[in-house]
Amino acid sequence: MKQASDSIIIDTRGIGLVEVTRPIVDWLAAQQITQGLLTIFCRHTSASLLIQENAAPAVKRDLARFFAELVREDAGYEHDDEGLDDMPAHIRSALTNVSLSIPVVSGAAVLGTWQGIYLFEHRRAPHRRTLALHVVGE
Amino acid sequence: MKQASDSIIIDTRGIGLVEVTRPIVDWLAAQQITQGLLTIFCRHTSASLLIQENAAPAVKRDLARFFAELVREDAGYEHDDEGLDDMPAHIRSALTNVSLSIPVVSGAAVLGTWQGIYLFEHRRAPHRRTLALHVVGE
Amino acid sequence: MKQASDSIIIDTRGIGLVEVTRPIVDWLAAQQITQGLLTIFCRHTSASLLIQENAAPAVKRDLARFFAELVREDAGYEHDDEGLDDMPAHIRSALTNVSLSIPVVSGAAVLGTWQGIYLFEHRRAPHRRTLALHVVGE
Repeated sequence: MKQASDSIIIDTRGIGLVEVTRPIVDWLAAQQITQGLLTIFCRHTSASLLIQENAAPAVKRDLARFFAELVREDAGYEHDDEGLDDMPAHIRSALTNVSLSIPVVSGAAVLGTWQGIYLFEHRRAPHRRTLALHVVGE
Repeated sequence: MKQASDSIIIDTRGIGLVEVTRPIVDWLAAQQITQGLLTIFCRHTSASLLIQENAAPAVKRDLARFFAELVREDAGYEHDDEGLDDMPAHIRSALTNVSLSIPVVSGAAVLGTWQGIYLFEHRRAPHRRTLALHVVGE
Repeated sequence: MKQASDSIIIDTRGIGLVEVTRPIVDWLAAQQITQGLLTIFCRHTSASLLIQENAAPAVKRDLARFFAELVREDAGYEHDDEGLDDMPAHIRSALTNVSLSIPVVSGAAVLGTWQGIYLFEHRRAPHRRTLALHVVGE
């Protein structure tokens, strides 16, 4: 049994989903672990992680629109000193994921055919985001 | 330290929660791991995982109704070529879980007394779903 | 590679977020694991876990208010024999997290600067809650 950990930097361009499958599976492949468990952790409270359909670009837009309508900017939050989009960003993060764990089999994460890993940026401005990666296995 | 991984197939009957605690804990028991970490991963983007109360059947119906009302089929999604229930299925998956990790102590997952593991089918039609399982420990 | 597991008890005071970062990172530090994976698991279906901003107390109140409005007590749930706040508690748990996994690097969980770990109590009455902890690494 061995393990590896690292972090990757993702530059976002404001609210929306950024696919991060490629840098994550590339990093995993370099660890030469045949069987194990991969974990991805988002080190932020206004961006989060999702596994979503990777085939239709409209899915990303529909997801962003759903969360924009469910968690409105004009809801009169008490916490608004970092901007009207800040508290909604925290809530949208709470509704999605800060960590994802994916089994590794035959040297690859067992993502389904249509599953891609996404970083969901919840702030209006572009941000530099850090994802921590960890894998344990052999 | 050792590990094991496998996958189980669950046939669903359309929208609703299917309890999957039994096949998962049975598989775990067969691995003879006394202490460790169990991870369950759903390989789909229109079905997801939940840990919920396992005592009252009405809880499953209330949960399904809540998500049906929160994520409506008639919201005018851009992505609708796979049916009106497809985009809501992706959103309901995003709001719940694609992976769950549960510590293993004394040879069993440390589920609380009332906790059951459920596969939440979000499509109207029956589907065959695959859950990947992984455990590491000793 | 080694592992450790334990559980911690948190007393809540009714609906709201209780920060649990300190007891968790203290427990982790005592395990003397330099690199690995920490998992926190909530053994309840009417309380859950969140990682949220730890700087502004108003964030906790805004989060509690958002979930109170999104998952209303007066929605006419079928399952109401344990009180009007019981079914909303199950739904709010489903919308947040039952487990969190955080990589450990240089002997500490890689929480971002503003990230704190919270137990989110969803019942009106105070409750005694149990969190299971697990770490694997070396």
